[in-house]
Amino acid sequence: MPDSYVRMGIIGVGSWATLGHMNFYRKHPKAKLVAICDVVAERAEEAARQFGAESVTTDYQELVARSEIDAVDIVTPNLMHAPVALAALQAGKHVICEKPIAMNYQEALSMAEAARQAGVVNAINFVYRCNPAAQFAHHLVQAGYLGRIYHVNGYYLQSWLVDRQVPLVWRLQKEMTGSGVLGDLGSHLIDLAEWITGERIKTVMADMQTFVQERPLLDGSGLGRVTVDDAANFLARFENGAMGTFSTTRYASGRRNHQALEIYGEQGAIAYSVEDIDQIQAALGPAYVKEQVMTPMPVPRRFKSADDSDYFSRQNRGGQIHAFIEAILAGKQMVPSFEDGLHNQEVMEALEISARERRWVDLPLT
Amino acid sequence: MPDSYVRMGIIGVGSWATLGHMNFYRKHPKAKLVAICDVVAERAEEAARQFGAESVTTDYQELVARSEIDAVDIVTPNLMHAPVALAALQAGKHVICEKPIAMNYQEALSMAEAARQAGVVNAINFVYRCNPAAQFAHHLVQAGYLGRIYHVNGYYLQSWLVDRQVPLVWRLQKEMTGSGVLGDLGSHLIDLAEWITGERIKTVMADMQTFVQERPLLDGSGLGRVTVDDAANFLARFENGAMGTFSTTRYASGRRNHQALEIYGEQGAIAYSVEDIDQIQAALGPAYVKEQVMTPMPVPRRFKSADDSDYFSRQNRGGQIHAFIEAILAGKQMVPSFEDGLHNQEVMEALEISARERRWVDLPLT
Amino acid sequence: MPDSYVRMGIIGVGSWATLGHMNFYRKHPKAKLVAICDVVAERAEEAARQFGAESVTTDYQELVARSEIDAVDIVTPNLMHAPVALAALQAGKHVICEKPIAMNYQEALSMAEAARQAGVVNAINFVYRCNPAAQFAHHLVQAGYLGRIYHVNGYYLQSWLVDRQVPLVWRLQKEMTGSGVLGDLGSHLIDLAEWITGERIKTVMADMQTFVQERPLLDGSGLGRVTVDDAANFLARFENGAMGTFSTTRYASGRRNHQALEIYGEQGAIAYSVEDIDQIQAALGPAYVKEQVMTPMPVPRRFKSADDSDYFSRQNRGGQIHAFIEAILAGKQMVPSFEDGLHNQEVMEALEISARERRWVDLPLT
Amino acid sequence: MPDSYVRMGIIGVGSWATLGHMNFYRKHPKAKLVAICDVVAERAEEAARQFGAESVTTDYQELVARSEIDAVDIVTPNLMHAPVALAALQAGKHVICEKPIAMNYQEALSMAEAARQAGVVNAINFVYRCNPAAQFAHHLVQAGYLGRIYHVNGYYLQSWLVDRQVPLVWRLQKEMTGSGVLGDLGSHLIDLAEWITGERIKTVMADMQTFVQERPLLDGSGLGRVTVDDAANFLARFENGAMGTFSTTRYASGRRNHQALEIYGEQGAIAYSVEDIDQIQAALGPAYVKEQVMTPMPVPRRFKSADDSDYFSRQNRGGQIHAFIEAILAGKQMVPSFEDGLHNQEVMEALEISARERRWVDLPLT
Repeated sequence: MPDSYVRMGIIGVGSWATLGHMNFYRKHPKAKLVAICDVVAERAEEAARQFGAESVTTDYQELVARSEIDAVDIVTPNLMHAPVALAALQAGKHVICEKPIAMNYQEALSMAEAARQAGVVNAINFVYRCNPAAQFAHHLVQAGYLGRIYHVNGYYLQSWLVDRQVPLVWRLQKEMTGSGVLGDLGSHLIDLAEWITGERIKTVMADMQTFVQERPLLDGSGLGRVTVDDAANFLARFENGAMGTFSTTRYASGRRNHQALEIYGEQGAIAYSVEDIDQIQAALGPAYVKEQVMTPMPVPRRFKSADDSDYFSRQNRGGQIHAFIEAILAGKQMVPSFEDGLHNQEVMEALEISARERRWVDLPLT
Repeated sequence: MPDSYVRMGIIGVGSWATLGHMNFYRKHPKAKLVAICDVVAERAEEAARQFGAESVTTDYQELVARSEIDAVDIVTPNLMHAPVALAALQAGKHVICEKPIAMNYQEALSMAEAARQAGVVNAINFVYRCNPAAQFAHHLVQAGYLGRIYHVNGYYLQSWLVDRQVPLVWRLQKEMTGSGVLGDLGSHLIDLAEWITGERIKTVMADMQTFVQERPLLDGSGLGRVTVDDAANFLARFENGAMGTFSTTRYASGRRNHQALEIYGEQGAIAYSVEDIDQIQAALGPAYVKEQVMTPMPVPRRFKSADDSDYFSRQNRGGQIHAFIEAILAGKQMVPSFEDGLHNQEVMEALEISARERRWVDLPLT
Repeated sequence: MPDSYVRMGIIGVGSWATLGHMNFYRKHPKAKLVAICDVVAERAEEAARQFGAESVTTDYQELVARSEIDAVDIVTPNLMHAPVALAALQAGKHVICEKPIAMNYQEALSMAEAARQAGVVNAINFVYRCNPAAQFAHHLVQAGYLGRIYHVNGYYLQSWLVDRQVPLVWRLQKEMTGSGVLGDLGSHLIDLAEWITGERIKTVMADMQTFVQERPLLDGSGLGRVTVDDAANFLARFENGAMGTFSTTRYASGRRNHQALEIYGEQGAIAYSVEDIDQIQAALGPAYVKEQVMTPMPVPRRFKSADDSDYFSRQNRGGQIHAFIEAILAGKQMVPSFEDGLHNQEVMEALEISARERRWVDLPLT
Repeated sequence: MPDSYVRMGIIGVGSWATLGHMNFYRKHPKAKLVAICDVVAERAEEAARQFGAESVTTDYQELVARSEIDAVDIVTPNLMHAPVALAALQAGKHVICEKPIAMNYQEALSMAEAARQAGVVNAINFVYRCNPAAQFAHHLVQAGYLGRIYHVNGYYLQSWLVDRQVPLVWRLQKEMTGSGVLGDLGSHLIDLAEWITGERIKTVMADMQTFVQERPLLDGSGLGRVTVDDAANFLARFENGAMGTFSTTRYASGRRNHQALEIYGEQGAIAYSVEDIDQIQAALGPAYVKEQVMTPMPVPRRFKSADDSDYFSRQNRGGQIHAFIEAILAGKQMVPSFEDGLHNQEVMEALEISARERRWVDLPLT
């Protein structure tokens, strides 16, 4: 058990790791980035120089075996989530993993099982739960201000694939990523909808589509096949009977990262957007419901990160990592854990079945 | 054929007729309100005094038979749309009818057939097509600024039923109205989505629900059964492959009349809201798509009503009636006609089948 | 050549130095403020205590001679720009100088020549080029979204002299400052107009005026003569034929620091204001040009400073100093350099001749 | 002298006449449109049917000779202003004429002289003086809230010529219109600047340009030469020493009708825009001047037209015609008269000389 700080090993040196996680570790008073692993040695070495890590490797097995490491941060493409997490858990390391937890439901089941057996702190990095406006939305619903929930509608829209010249990156290859926009954006939207409302989805109907079938290969040698979904829309019913409509896409011109949720209850309503972390729209209580008016409601300071020195901090993107470090030092499990990652993957599996078989699919999967 | 103005008979004296239609006729230089029919004689008489109509009756058969009437405006509950329209068409009168056109698809088929045979001007009053922002949205899509359409997402949300004490009005009784929120709000949303994009829906999947099963009877004698849908969500695919998600409800606290449509295409996007008739949100062309930004775009003056003396005028709620009058004087058919009303009813029929049988339903119905 | 950070000497301890530059050096990971020079010893000493500099002096010759200094930052009144810069260049120091570069064109010529011969990094601190909205405006024009430029109109308006009791500070004395509002505000406006459009001014016509001829002396001993311009308006033609109108003044009541530029091209237009660093107004592409509408366009995150902890940072006022430090460490020249400062001074010289001789003056001056 | 209403003859049936003037006469209780003249007989006849005029003609001499006409409204292209006005004045009719008053200064002189001798009511239709926000701006300056005026800056920008396919309409032919953007837009801007401030321009320096030299002929037979200015910028000094910069163009992409004036005085400032008739921006008095802040100031109701039933009314575009009718019925001269039109033309003549000879030109012309 670490005493006053947690010694971290990170696996996967992409832009999230560089711009976010490693920068976060450098500034965090209770974390120390000790080791970096990436399949490209130069990338690991450059990051080590920039962020002051002691050791680098291209072999994740080697990293998770090191005794001077307390915890592992998995920031690889989805393909490597399961193998790395299983190895780290077996080595008795605490693990935090990017979402979606796995390539598919089967992998996720084995990861959650391994985490249960390892008894270490295990976390799934649903960053948007820590967004100040999302925290406030969660608080308002949990405090009961909305009463019975009737409707949960959500959009998570991006536009980066609308340009047909965007090449066939790993996020477009099923063997690297498991699913497309569903695992990338849908995963967040499902988690937020369930976490903010406190209601689980119990049945789903999905419609998925790949708009552009082929894209330029990264090596310039021609075109390659897109093997994941470009867009995923779905209907849902929650356990309490609430109805949901959701749309996720990478083809929404004009939208950089438009994540929005509207929740309507018998006594009130809130509308949250990731683009506005300083306020939500709300109608809470008889005066607003009877007057039928939603007004902006500033997010109280207590839901905001103390450190707003940059965009990552202002959005509180490091919030889950912070909670992970605190949990390790306190010797307690945290939420969201691998169990939450597993449930999230289960909903996505149901959506994939629904889209493929064109029918409603109930949860939990049996 | 009327010479310089159209002599109108109106059937049904509810709030739309009183606040909207009859006031509109009084101000319109080419229309004259001649006769008023309502099942409640006092209501018809009071309206005749207020708006200067010559004759009143409680029998619509009598009204449509009058030779001094050129055209009939049907503003009754849905139950009476078909019988009144068929009678008026048989009497050779021009007819404009509120939406939805009928109680169901079968009725709508007979009305469209009768209209074809009568050869008179027949119109379905989809008022929102004349909203300045909707006109502008239609113009921008039709001018090609969006390119291939990928997504059409829409909300039509109201909140008036969230209060459980709201009584069992005719809009909640299937035998009076045919359907609930679907015919009331969904009808508009379907029409706008298809009209603005110029694409027809070819397959649908719906989820409908009645949240509050019983409500106070109007006579105070206890509770009565709500026999229509309170909320209707649906997924859709359009003919060109575009995907749609739609949510309609009367249980969205904080929303008085929140009708919003977002349309995303390969070269641009627009977001329209009925609450803001002076601007839309848009990203049109490379600068905006590449920079991933939507900005407000003022609705040009040419899409606005010349008469903005009140809310009804500013929203151009009388726009279809104006077009109807002009069409009669010009001796031409207008759009949207009974055919458009029939197609709209067909989509709703598909949605009801889908919700009932929990399966995708293709259009046209065979 | 410094290894990992640059050792700075600063000359001139006014408000810009105190609130901006020295604070910036304290936070910058690759700069260290080593020495401070000011003619008032107490001012230098107080600054050294506050910002942790090792040595102070009242003699700039002594400062530029010190071997432990890599670079010199000139923040004095304009009178001292040339002598200090020439001494620093002769001593082989890198130099960054406030704008305008000199008292007049002749001085600027000698400074640019000395910089060429010294072969060190030399920079002119046109801070507004680093304003996020200006960066974005520059990007949009350079990306070609505006097409051929027709019009460039600009205002740079302040109001601090509208009060006749404001005393005869150094900025109002020609022997200290060279020119009045022209060098102070006009210098920025000319630089921004040319840099954003990428077009040089080729002919000018100016009108200058001193509204209040006498002001209280700082020592309270009566009135002294204002010897510089209070306002300077001018017309311009750019190399590509574009037309410009510009107004600069210190007598615009209600305007604290109103710097605004509008650029109109055949395919689009943008309007930039220093007061709004988060958005510009724009009409880019056929949809906007045909519809004749300008809309707000948010400045993308990539044009913003990573550090927005205060106003100076949010405006990115330290951006040029940051570029200067990076250029020294990389061993490369930067833009804008003394050459750019010279060109800027040449345009101002042409404006002064034009105002004095009441005629159009062509550039370059022969 | 008419008793209770004025019998009007209108000459020139273009869009201003149709959409504005004749509609205005129909609604005005003290005016009656009696006769219409246009060189195209069908156009005059169609207008007579629409607006209920008794007689039509293609010969303006015939119209001005009719005894049943009290006053003449000249809405022709500029070419016909002088001949029609002179004929009407000779026939003893009251005359209101569109701006600019004439093709050139010489014509304007003869018209003002004829008006003086005729002793009838003569008016120049500077419509923007009646805009509610302009009225309020005029009031604030005249009430002395700004103190000594230092700066008057103005833009009048349109974009309709930015499309090279816009054909060679009469407004682009010198023999039909006298001048281009200067007479069309500059005329208004000069009048507003002088009227609102109460200060006359005493010297000017102009820069004019024709960006697109040839445009498609209206008959499709090829290209024809544009013989007027596309853009006209100018500097000015007013009698009290105030300085002005002005830009007028038809090549400002994104601007439909952007007319804006900023006036800065020792004790306050106002900024007016024709696009916002409900408020101006202002800093009036010590609190605002010392705090250096401009804030929106609503236009009081008393400056607004009672009739805001359409855009023409809301902008009070009929205000000068209303004043003309009232002046005739009251037997008094009105402002602005032909004398004001003459002065306006004189300033434009000075601007044309200045642009041609590239020198400052003083007023009055000798």
